[in-house]
Amino acid sequence: MKPSGRGPRKSDDFGKWFDYVLSEAELLDVRYGVKGFVVYRPNAMKIVARIYRMLEGELERAGHRQVLFPVVIPLSNMKKETEHVKGFEDQVFMIERAGGEELQEKLVLRPTSETAVYPMVALWVRSYGHLPLKMYQSVAVYRHETKATRPLLRGREFLWIETHDVFPTEKEAEEQVLQDLDVEKRVCQELGLAFMVADREPWDKFPGAEYSYAYDVPLPDGHVIQIGTTHYLKDKFTKAFDVSFLGRDGKWETPVSTCFGPGVGRMLAAVIATHGDDGGLVLPFGMAEHDVVIVPIQQKGQEESVKSKCAELLDKIGGAGYDCALDDSDRSPGSKFFAWEVKGVPLRVEVGPKEVAERKVTVFRRDTRTRETMGEEDLLARMGELKGDMLKTLARRSQDLLREKQKRATTRAEVTDLAAGRYIIKMGFCGERGCADEIRKATDGYEVRGRALDESAKPSGNCAWCGRPALRTVYVADAY
Amino acid sequence: MKPSGRGPRKSDDFGKWFDYVLSEAELLDVRYGVKGFVVYRPNAMKIVARIYRMLEGELERAGHRQVLFPVVIPLSNMKKETEHVKGFEDQVFMIERAGGEELQEKLVLRPTSETAVYPMVALWVRSYGHLPLKMYQSVAVYRHETKATRPLLRGREFLWIETHDVFPTEKEAEEQVLQDLDVEKRVCQELGLAFMVADREPWDKFPGAEYSYAYDVPLPDGHVIQIGTTHYLKDKFTKAFDVSFLGRDGKWETPVSTCFGPGVGRMLAAVIATHGDDGGLVLPFGMAEHDVVIVPIQQKGQEESVKSKCAELLDKIGGAGYDCALDDSDRSPGSKFFAWEVKGVPLRVEVGPKEVAERKVTVFRRDTRTRETMGEEDLLARMGELKGDMLKTLARRSQDLLREKQKRATTRAEVTDLAAGRYIIKMGFCGERGCADEIRKATDGYEVRGRALDESAKPSGNCAWCGRPALRTVYVADAY
Repeated sequence: MKPSGRGPRKSDDFGKWFDYVLSEAELLDVRYGVKGFVVYRPNAMKIVARIYRMLEGELERAGHRQVLFPVVIPLSNMKKETEHVKGFEDQVFMIERAGGEELQEKLVLRPTSETAVYPMVALWVRSYGHLPLKMYQSVAVYRHETKATRPLLRGREFLWIETHDVFPTEKEAEEQVLQDLDVEKRVCQELGLAFMVADREPWDKFPGAEYSYAYDVPLPDGHVIQIGTTHYLKDKFTKAFDVSFLGRDGKWETPVSTCFGPGVGRMLAAVIATHGDDGGLVLPFGMAEHDVVIVPIQQKGQEESVKSKCAELLDKIGGAGYDCALDDSDRSPGSKFFAWEVKGVPLRVEVGPKEVAERKVTVFRRDTRTRETMGEEDLLARMGELKGDMLKTLARRSQDLLREKQKRATTRAEVTDLAAGRYIIKMGFCGERGCADEIRKATDGYEVRGRALDESAKPSGNCAWCGRPALRTVYVADAY
Repeated sequence: MKPSGRGPRKSDDFGKWFDYVLSEAELLDVRYGVKGFVVYRPNAMKIVARIYRMLEGELERAGHRQVLFPVVIPLSNMKKETEHVKGFEDQVFMIERAGGEELQEKLVLRPTSETAVYPMVALWVRSYGHLPLKMYQSVAVYRHETKATRPLLRGREFLWIETHDVFPTEKEAEEQVLQDLDVEKRVCQELGLAFMVADREPWDKFPGAEYSYAYDVPLPDGHVIQIGTTHYLKDKFTKAFDVSFLGRDGKWETPVSTCFGPGVGRMLAAVIATHGDDGGLVLPFGMAEHDVVIVPIQQKGQEESVKSKCAELLDKIGGAGYDCALDDSDRSPGSKFFAWEVKGVPLRVEVGPKEVAERKVTVFRRDTRTRETMGEEDLLARMGELKGDMLKTLARRSQDLLREKQKRATTRAEVTDLAAGRYIIKMGFCGERGCADEIRKATDGYEVRGRALDESAKPSGNCAWCGRPALRTVYVADAY
């Protein structure tokens, strides 16, 4: 079936297509009037809330408990960890006045919460019995990005979860980093998203981290979206904020810590960008405005029988636990098809006089844009199958894309060729920042994303760019 | 059974008791270091998250959809509705610099979101088909309170939900006000909280509202806590922000609007303050750190049989869907009892050699502080009964308190006597602000809370304070 899209085509101009879908599917409104800040409309918040619940559920099963720290952090706290403040001082929103008066202590809007959290951790953790301490908060963070802002991809108000975990030993903390990766993996499975993991290069780590893992989702246009990061902080923050605990052996020790920041807004962006097609959003069950929309196909003289059949089906489908709506508005069937497809509603049930006469229904599935007709009595069973099947289809497409997009380069020419072809490049890398900078310039923005975690730690061969011995195999890609 | 509390007694000094419970039950940490901002620890967030889910569920069933507006509002927006800016200008946190640079447009942290919402409503609402528009957001708001701050009761970061509803007619908007009251009622039923409704006096309305309903929960010490408000805004905001729609008759009209602000932090405060006793928190199922805690009562030589029985019960109770923990720490049974009672865990299961030998368990319920012993085979069935019964007990106590605390006054002497006795006063009222001010001074802080909604609109008799004819029957109480 031909897509009914009237907007830009995803394959022609991904950026235009993305903005069109954000607006046409009523996800975001970018007209708020403050640069970098957008309004999340109900269709976006349904997905956002769902992603938050998935992540929170996984984190709680992994032993984290929810906390909430203030949105404001005293500027003096920010200054306690040198690398950290360097990384963020150019980006913070400052609060210096309130209620018409100068504040005694300047505050910043949280750009991330380590410097809010660790002074409290120092009060809470006194003995080994208080560890591990595993917390998360579901909040927005605020960073005054100086580059061009872009809805969901680069904004100044950023929806995420941040975990803050403290452990008595390095071993437990490093195991946590892998557990965080598992959390991201399970949630992405539920969202049908494939991703790759990069151990970020030293100059790209989180300010204050020992090492950082980044999760990148590949997009059809060759970009990647970073949807989250986990950082092994070792004792950077626990030392800076004087956290110590009395160990089992009666000696005072410094604990070590990790943090994990799945970006909920960015996961929303990845869902939209990965699954969507020229007709708009494509969503698995439970995330669109409705799971199923019934559209009556009226013919003169048969209105009543179609109408009553639609009402009967609405009861039946809704009663089976699906979020089902009947679109009995005055619009033509064609405009209804268009509107619900843009919004990514997984299934459309079409009911006309023919269906009524034969006790059948026609079901359109959004992912494959195909129709099938079935007996009414088979509808619910088939719907159950389609629910699982559609998620599998979306997940498989994303996996396929990840495989197809990754190509290996061993020479400089291959690197520039693959970048020109919008591939994600895997290559041996010497580990020099200078090389990474050269690649970026030569390819109009391709970044060394970091060591590929699915490769063995010790690569054979040389850096594809400079020819010196490779220290690791890295991903190189253009990131939003 | 005697309370095991070691802290201040609730009946002796409510304020001290409240602070003690916040700290001892590990609910809040007030040592964050920024006045009016506190850290919500996991035991508080479990209750907060539960209250949010209850409210969100009720609001969605009533046709609201979730949105999210930015935390920052351009100062120029704030100034568009005169009464509104007057009400909030002395309380806002200002952002004038970010990333080291002066901002072109000054921003405020949202003290409430009408002035963020209505410019967007003006873009979204063009025709009668766009109405009603019913939205909510679950966020914190920021008000630089100049009075002494107090955790949960008067802070500068305030957790709530705010709805913003727009209707084509006044009738529908005024019906919404009553629907909001129903939402508050249903959630309070689930929390076991009784409340009274006051139609606030004109000088106490929300800045910009036509009228405001406030929901007050009575406390044992005679105070009330306002846990939420609903405002009929008529066309104040829709006019100020030029919202108009094309009606069915083809004429442009101005819609009318409402907002509802259930205070989630204040509902948490009401739960703590209403249900708690000298032993600490008392909570219904689903809100404490655990629903059930098993405490082994060890005797020398019998450790193994008690230990294995406890493990067996943990499986059994956890398997039945309760959040059950086994406290096998090194602490004495007495300290365990104390610690879990302070945290309000609904049921404690005690298992000693006697219980093992007789295949029985002893169950302690937190609300009545009573123990009962039952055959192991009866445990799950009894637990199911206790779950419902404990919520009923808590709800009945709150209802009883509301009834007992309300007394009617018809003379000035009765007003001051009842205030001295820490009652909530019901009285005829002339409607004059001067009278309300006099009452406040004479009673050390009692406020006319507004017209009592459970009384007929036209009272007989006179103002209890000044003797002039009464215009309405009001509540008078000391509010946190």
